[in-house]
Amino acid sequence: MTARGGEEVRRRNLGAVLREVHLGGPVSRSVLAGRLDLNRSTIMALTAELTAAGLVTEDAPADTGRAGRPSLVVSPASRRCYVLAFDVAVDRLVAARVGLGGVVLARREAVRPRTGVDLGDVVGVLARFGRDLLDPDATCVGIGASYCGMVRRADGMVRYGPHLGWQDQAFGPALAAGLGLALPVEVGNEAHLGAVAEHLRGAGVGHRNLVYLHGDVGVGGGIIVGGRLLDGDGGYGCEVGHMLVNPFDGRPCLCGSRGCLEAEVGEQALLEHAGRAGELVGRAGVGAVVALADGGDPAAREALDRIGDWLGVGVVNLINLFNPGLVVFGGVLRDLYRGTAEPVRRRIDRHVLPVSRERVRLATSALADDATLAGAAELAFAALLEDPMTAVR
Amino acid sequence: MTARGGEEVRRRNLGAVLREVHLGGPVSRSVLAGRLDLNRSTIMALTAELTAAGLVTEDAPADTGRAGRPSLVVSPASRRCYVLAFDVAVDRLVAARVGLGGVVLARREAVRPRTGVDLGDVVGVLARFGRDLLDPDATCVGIGASYCGMVRRADGMVRYGPHLGWQDQAFGPALAAGLGLALPVEVGNEAHLGAVAEHLRGAGVGHRNLVYLHGDVGVGGGIIVGGRLLDGDGGYGCEVGHMLVNPFDGRPCLCGSRGCLEAEVGEQALLEHAGRAGELVGRAGVGAVVALADGGDPAAREALDRIGDWLGVGVVNLINLFNPGLVVFGGVLRDLYRGTAEPVRRRIDRHVLPVSRERVRLATSALADDATLAGAAELAFAALLEDPMTAVR
Repeated sequence: MTARGGEEVRRRNLGAVLREVHLGGPVSRSVLAGRLDLNRSTIMALTAELTAAGLVTEDAPADTGRAGRPSLVVSPASRRCYVLAFDVAVDRLVAARVGLGGVVLARREAVRPRTGVDLGDVVGVLARFGRDLLDPDATCVGIGASYCGMVRRADGMVRYGPHLGWQDQAFGPALAAGLGLALPVEVGNEAHLGAVAEHLRGAGVGHRNLVYLHGDVGVGGGIIVGGRLLDGDGGYGCEVGHMLVNPFDGRPCLCGSRGCLEAEVGEQALLEHAGRAGELVGRAGVGAVVALADGGDPAAREALDRIGDWLGVGVVNLINLFNPGLVVFGGVLRDLYRGTAEPVRRRIDRHVLPVSRERVRLATSALADDATLAGAAELAFAALLEDPMTAVR
Repeated sequence: MTARGGEEVRRRNLGAVLREVHLGGPVSRSVLAGRLDLNRSTIMALTAELTAAGLVTEDAPADTGRAGRPSLVVSPASRRCYVLAFDVAVDRLVAARVGLGGVVLARREAVRPRTGVDLGDVVGVLARFGRDLLDPDATCVGIGASYCGMVRRADGMVRYGPHLGWQDQAFGPALAAGLGLALPVEVGNEAHLGAVAEHLRGAGVGHRNLVYLHGDVGVGGGIIVGGRLLDGDGGYGCEVGHMLVNPFDGRPCLCGSRGCLEAEVGEQALLEHAGRAGELVGRAGVGAVVALADGGDPAAREALDRIGDWLGVGVVNLINLFNPGLVVFGGVLRDLYRGTAEPVRRRIDRHVLPVSRERVRLATSALADDATLAGAAELAFAALLEDPMTAVR
């Protein structure tokens, strides 16, 4: 038992050190020892092993001006160890080579037409991007993809992606085959991955409980509960866009229901309320309505107030259910929230319980348009961070 | 490191063995070894230590009819090791001595008047019950209490208990002082504790994701996410009763808002819709309306349909957000759900996403009126199960 226990502890410690360096960036061995509550000789053995595996580098720090032998600085080997990250959004396809430490080393992007793009087309574009991005002088340790719909994590199956018209499409396996790297493709829902990225590297660092709302054409969500993503029994949790906020005479939703949050606050609702449905479209259209309202256009202002009221209802429910420290608005909701902060706040003041209201803060995404891509990269790094030595062997 | 690691592993294993026996009941050492993935000599050492501490007993099994030396059966020492559990509900005060393994060994109960009972009165009754229940021949290892309002776990402070008119009352410390046992009183919200109890011992055994709705005068909730209670930043999560289900012209709620789930489906709404507000009251009143509807009373039937529709809106949102395997109706919602299953199901069919609808099951509480008390007992046992040897020393 002791031998097995010791080996398990060592593996956990290797993962913990690599995670610190990956998420926090360069750090001295002495600081690492303090953060992980390990003694210095243990840390030295662990970082030596990670260095030998090509996962970190150890260097003398810049002159500290202090006496004594300085502690070496441990940095992620970003150029030697990387993942491929993909993002299938409604409007665009993105691929990137992301080095350990989370640095985007190279990227490719294409505008995606909104309709009539089947699995083969999408995989064809992404696989070509992916092969372009490979670095023969470094090691690719994983592949992750973000998809704008419901995904079964276990096998990368897109169960339901109404915005692209996909249903039960084996996206992960198809992309893995297209890339031909003998590595699986881990697939996640875009809002789930955006939440993870904001939690690890964005506006939510240090928060154990946060709600991330992601606007695309619809509204997705990712919710961090006690430091972990809420996934639910099948991985289909966090569907904030399909909260029933308007139980009577609600607007029809792509999901087949009526009165869902995304039907009431989505791009289409905003543009119609503002009287600009034929004229404006997409992210730019939402931005234009916010600009019009700022400029005094009464229809645009009224549309935003109406949308903001519904968005407020959704946010109220999320705060009362999750008692989060932070609510983050991402994707196109960054623009929308800037134009609706007042009606959202009004609903919060009226309906959120004081004990939950006293702490919660509202913010826009810090990672902006790269939140979902960054989340896909974290998905791809997960196995390495869990067990560094097995993953690079 | 190895010594520390080994000691940590041993402590974790002691807790794991005791938890298995506490939650699963008597079990042979060989089955334990299999479940915990430990070898038999390790299990023997662990159970010997727990036996010596008076926490379990080891006995020869009843004749198995099989050849060979049978594996000893390990049982919780329910009569030697117990906790005190308390339940402050709107209508009643309960106290119990609960033995390891979760068996209620003795109990006291009092009807509580609905208004005008201050902290001192409640603590006086409970402390007297608690002292009566002590067993001088056994060891009390913890004290837990369930309270029908919002509670700050860290210090047992009732932050907000509108049904008893309490605000910022130091309930936990007051009860600890009243009992004078030199043990702290762990206090939890009744619906949170009901959820934990159903998860560990009731309808939710084996479910990692479940939603528990608890009806008293209002509606509380406890949500298990990935096997753990959702608590949120301050411990005030799961407030399902204050989801805003009726954003316009909603009924006034005790919290000061309007249109909350508990305002729309609570006891008062039901009795008013049924035209029985002056006449019926409490749990019995809700049961009477359900009986009237079963007997063909049209006002009662209409009231239940109306309430069931709102309850359905709330349940829809919870399923879309949490993708649970199970939704459990507890407290007075057991009666109410029996009378509203059809309108609730209608809302689910119309609004829940198919990927989440395909797995979820709806059920009434298996622990019935003892769910919250059983949860309080688990709260009291938590420290012992975390670290058995420190807790009994």
